[in-house]
Amino acid sequence: MKEVSFESDYIAGAHPEILKALVDTNLECLSGYGTDRYCDSAKEKIKKACNCPEAEVEFLVGGTQTNSIIISTMLKGYEGVIAAKTGHISLHEAGAVEYSGIKVLEIEGKDGKLDAKNVKKYIEDFYDDGSFEHMVFPGMVYISQPTEYGTLYTKEELEALSKVCKEYKIPLFADGARLIYALSSKESDVTLEDMARLTDVFYIGGTKAGCLCGEAVVFTKNNRPKHFINLVKKRGGLLAKGRLLGVQFDALFTNDTYKKIGDYAIDMASKLIDIIEKSGKEFYLKSPTNQQFIIFENKELKAFMEKVKVSFWEKYDETHTVVRLATSWSTSEKDLEILEKEL
Amino acid sequence: MKEVSFESDYIAGAHPEILKALVDTNLECLSGYGTDRYCDSAKEKIKKACNCPEAEVEFLVGGTQTNSIIISTMLKGYEGVIAAKTGHISLHEAGAVEYSGIKVLEIEGKDGKLDAKNVKKYIEDFYDDGSFEHMVFPGMVYISQPTEYGTLYTKEELEALSKVCKEYKIPLFADGARLIYALSSKESDVTLEDMARLTDVFYIGGTKAGCLCGEAVVFTKNNRPKHFINLVKKRGGLLAKGRLLGVQFDALFTNDTYKKIGDYAIDMASKLIDIIEKSGKEFYLKSPTNQQFIIFENKELKAFMEKVKVSFWEKYDETHTVVRLATSWSTSEKDLEILEKEL
Amino acid sequence: MKEVSFESDYIAGAHPEILKALVDTNLECLSGYGTDRYCDSAKEKIKKACNCPEAEVEFLVGGTQTNSIIISTMLKGYEGVIAAKTGHISLHEAGAVEYSGIKVLEIEGKDGKLDAKNVKKYIEDFYDDGSFEHMVFPGMVYISQPTEYGTLYTKEELEALSKVCKEYKIPLFADGARLIYALSSKESDVTLEDMARLTDVFYIGGTKAGCLCGEAVVFTKNNRPKHFINLVKKRGGLLAKGRLLGVQFDALFTNDTYKKIGDYAIDMASKLIDIIEKSGKEFYLKSPTNQQFIIFENKELKAFMEKVKVSFWEKYDETHTVVRLATSWSTSEKDLEILEKEL
Amino acid sequence: MKEVSFESDYIAGAHPEILKALVDTNLECLSGYGTDRYCDSAKEKIKKACNCPEAEVEFLVGGTQTNSIIISTMLKGYEGVIAAKTGHISLHEAGAVEYSGIKVLEIEGKDGKLDAKNVKKYIEDFYDDGSFEHMVFPGMVYISQPTEYGTLYTKEELEALSKVCKEYKIPLFADGARLIYALSSKESDVTLEDMARLTDVFYIGGTKAGCLCGEAVVFTKNNRPKHFINLVKKRGGLLAKGRLLGVQFDALFTNDTYKKIGDYAIDMASKLIDIIEKSGKEFYLKSPTNQQFIIFENKELKAFMEKVKVSFWEKYDETHTVVRLATSWSTSEKDLEILEKEL
Repeated sequence: MKEVSFESDYIAGAHPEILKALVDTNLECLSGYGTDRYCDSAKEKIKKACNCPEAEVEFLVGGTQTNSIIISTMLKGYEGVIAAKTGHISLHEAGAVEYSGIKVLEIEGKDGKLDAKNVKKYIEDFYDDGSFEHMVFPGMVYISQPTEYGTLYTKEELEALSKVCKEYKIPLFADGARLIYALSSKESDVTLEDMARLTDVFYIGGTKAGCLCGEAVVFTKNNRPKHFINLVKKRGGLLAKGRLLGVQFDALFTNDTYKKIGDYAIDMASKLIDIIEKSGKEFYLKSPTNQQFIIFENKELKAFMEKVKVSFWEKYDETHTVVRLATSWSTSEKDLEILEKEL
Repeated sequence: MKEVSFESDYIAGAHPEILKALVDTNLECLSGYGTDRYCDSAKEKIKKACNCPEAEVEFLVGGTQTNSIIISTMLKGYEGVIAAKTGHISLHEAGAVEYSGIKVLEIEGKDGKLDAKNVKKYIEDFYDDGSFEHMVFPGMVYISQPTEYGTLYTKEELEALSKVCKEYKIPLFADGARLIYALSSKESDVTLEDMARLTDVFYIGGTKAGCLCGEAVVFTKNNRPKHFINLVKKRGGLLAKGRLLGVQFDALFTNDTYKKIGDYAIDMASKLIDIIEKSGKEFYLKSPTNQQFIIFENKELKAFMEKVKVSFWEKYDETHTVVRLATSWSTSEKDLEILEKEL
Repeated sequence: MKEVSFESDYIAGAHPEILKALVDTNLECLSGYGTDRYCDSAKEKIKKACNCPEAEVEFLVGGTQTNSIIISTMLKGYEGVIAAKTGHISLHEAGAVEYSGIKVLEIEGKDGKLDAKNVKKYIEDFYDDGSFEHMVFPGMVYISQPTEYGTLYTKEELEALSKVCKEYKIPLFADGARLIYALSSKESDVTLEDMARLTDVFYIGGTKAGCLCGEAVVFTKNNRPKHFINLVKKRGGLLAKGRLLGVQFDALFTNDTYKKIGDYAIDMASKLIDIIEKSGKEFYLKSPTNQQFIIFENKELKAFMEKVKVSFWEKYDETHTVVRLATSWSTSEKDLEILEKEL
Repeated sequence: MKEVSFESDYIAGAHPEILKALVDTNLECLSGYGTDRYCDSAKEKIKKACNCPEAEVEFLVGGTQTNSIIISTMLKGYEGVIAAKTGHISLHEAGAVEYSGIKVLEIEGKDGKLDAKNVKKYIEDFYDDGSFEHMVFPGMVYISQPTEYGTLYTKEELEALSKVCKEYKIPLFADGARLIYALSSKESDVTLEDMARLTDVFYIGGTKAGCLCGEAVVFTKNNRPKHFINLVKKRGGLLAKGRLLGVQFDALFTNDTYKKIGDYAIDMASKLIDIIEKSGKEFYLKSPTNQQFIIFENKELKAFMEKVKVSFWEKYDETHTVVRLATSWSTSEKDLEILEKEL
């Protein structure tokens, strides 16, 4: 019996197309550590999808790992990374960036997003400070697309951030753990090509897009750190059976599977929004992507969660709680029906 | 077309039983980060197989990651880890242990193995040194079973190492990336139960035992570091879809699949040894497990490797090279036939 | 010719009493690394001044080093340190705490001070968060007495902070780089004994109190990390000629020299305040300790700084700048006269 | 009463010339963090003494700190440092290099010295290894001049090491904690100018040369890491009263004080050797610098050490111990007389 769950977008195993690819290639003999033909093929397909032939693509296992590896291999010793206070690296990665010796320079955002003006002001103020040589240099800007709240940067906003980063010669890095949902969102004007053009490095999340695991890092400006594989191994991130990542991403970028998965989840999210609105429940945040946040009375919530799994997000007040509902390729019409009944 | 390859024991995908389990459970909705029922079930089965009900089992993704996480979460700030110079952590992990701030205290071994007497002498000499307060304290002993050369510790040797560690109150840690081949070796008198009894922590490798990835860490003495999941996340090792590890290890420990995989590979290795012996090729090291090391003339090697994939091990002399051949669940009789013809 | 400088409280060499002690003991043969009789004597005197016989005292060289050593040796692997955003460790130590792998959990303060209620709320919110196992645990509270703005915690405020820390069983750590000026301040009701009683660890700054270098760390609750000297050496903080610190602190705590130095500087600061007030210059922050912050018009400032050295603090607005003036044992009546003339 | 001690070359305070400079400059108002005129002057004098106008000189506090700062700021993320097993960074710095995330690649030396041929072979073997991308790259060669055993590299030996380093484009780093004794040794043909020419970075120890503390780092090839002061602060090594280092090194390099100190100690060491030889005690190692190592019967040693302080070096066998005797500027003829009587 399949439970009804909107707990996250990684509650199921692999998307059928991805699973099929794993099964089909299972008996092939392939060399390890990402040197196999599926990794090669997946890299080419991703570069093409980004329309960025000069890109360098690498596969890593999970999101926190990817963030800390990218940040710690790209920054110089005197630099830190600017991020929103609500950024995943600021709050929800157990201090992984700091574990690699680097400070996250947290600044205020709005609905999870950084404003280019504030970033610029932060950097200007830094260089205006009399003792800046004793402080952590701003060495990178980290954003998430979509953000941790499911919100989106517009192309204009990304262009503004990119401009600030170029001005100060520091990379713009986009955490795309859920990037496919941004690309499929009806409110987004940002394409994969834009991501490659406007950031210096970003990644396309696999784990939350129907893979069993895996994140595809795209270095867009001939800026992959030297001996990157060695640096990944040193940080415990190198997979012996690199094929596990190559095969999955190859499938994800064959026949636009990643787009279909994104489109489907966004479609289900739009139905989800309708159901919530009809139910009279109050939105904490109605997002243009696959995550929706609603406010529950605590006493109602317990009974509800026996029928439908959702994710605790945060305490709203003494008597209310914010919960998150996410859709994905594995969300079914049946799930929505049951939700509608129980909400 | 399947290539003929003895390159390693991780050239194929997942063992059919493991792949089947992944497929069968694929659509189930499960919570993340190792809290699912398959992780629970796999842990129970492993504890039972170890006859160690008090054990605490945790799943990690890869071997280097596992080594550096275990070492860096179990040692105190003033301690380092004793290992053989040829140990995987000493030589082939790109300095991952040091990346976590810890020194590997390398001592001489023999055929990849540490001798309890030498370990004891090293520790005694340390405390005899007038300036030991300015030195790295020996805080753990790291061994591999089987070793990087495919050799094995006997029960007596493990008991001797265990005794030294107990005397100095430091943990004995066994890297079992290929443990199943030690357990199945005809020359071994060490059981899984012995491993649990004689070490303080060890792991059962999945990656090299037919999983797509995964290592099962067994803390045997109520000594799992507090908030271990947090420490794993901080080090980038926490998998969102923890089920990927749980389902695979559950399958590996159902119906003794791990033993069958080990026994099969050892059987194939024994046939491999026969073929090598018949061929007249010289062994660099004939091991009791699934890895064999032979010496090739360089000019022969190139032609040979066009037919059969093997792994470069090390330069033997100006005109000879040591190569490694490994067997696994995916080695076929056909592979051996072709090898026999080409050798 | 001695310049007129209010740039900081560490512009001169050693206070005459301290210099005399260095000269007097110069030819004595003493063992290294803090094992000499002056270190012993200084430790006893400090314990006595703190009325805390069970205290353990250790000497380190500088403030940033001391902060990062205390924090990194006292915290557990899953913990971070709560500090005000304006705290020295948050802003002005080049990321030294993060270099040791630890996150500074920055929260809003007021005039450089943390409020116990806000600290309690932060910790409560942390444990209320559904995903706190994926976050950095609050493992210590860091405050400065006086703060970076020269402001002071009252005894009541310290008691409130201490209570919160006790409730959550985490240490309260006070950075006392300028502690002597807090102790001598006329507005302070906090004694050295209170510091020892209410904090778990604090230090008495020597560098800014008339020593050439040195900070005396006081572990007040039998909580000095095991093998502390080894941990200090590992972090590059162990001085071969430990006597340099022992002799200076021994002099500082002989005949209440530290009090006399503090009282003198506070007296000079009070005269400084009078001069500033008479001058009509606007205070940015008038502090009860030895640092005063005033606002200058940019065009005036340049000319002024040719006559009197002060410290750039921060940009106030496009046409104004905040500067800091500090007094110390080396501030003379003559200095004040010249300042009065030039202001 | 001055004890008779040959325990080390850092048992006394500051050499009189250095102490005088500290006293003479004590009341001058100077800016902090190494920006004062004495630091500037000392840097110029050192560059001149090295006949290396393009050198960049920086002052740090202690030896272990200096080693770990130089190594961790100069290496790339995938590199480690080659050192003799008996090197100070390998054995006696509590793992400070590893604390900064870097592996010390220990190779066999002889009498504390590395042989250029062995270094070259190590690097060649590294690149010959099939899996070198998974290993720590040799990124620097660390030597000590004189070594931890008081032995010396000849100019020819340094040239050979320098050549290997140039060939592989990695820096040669010389730990000169006791460099002045090498420069003054009668058996040495290596000048300060040679050190600057043949190494990429080295330091001139102050602590063991009559300073209270301090090491002068000389970057000889326009290779000082960018924002070095920031990197030093991040590692807890930046001194607020940088003058303490500047004034001392300025005195050390005025009127060849450093040479006089070295020459005197070497002269005393030669008398020390005579006394030891006359006594019939067996040398463990008779060095051409200021440290001598002799073998004592354990039962004699205790009585002897009540009269004369020496340093325990290592256990020789069950009934014998190696002790070290060091001379310095503070060694007197009287000390030698008493030693002669007691030996």
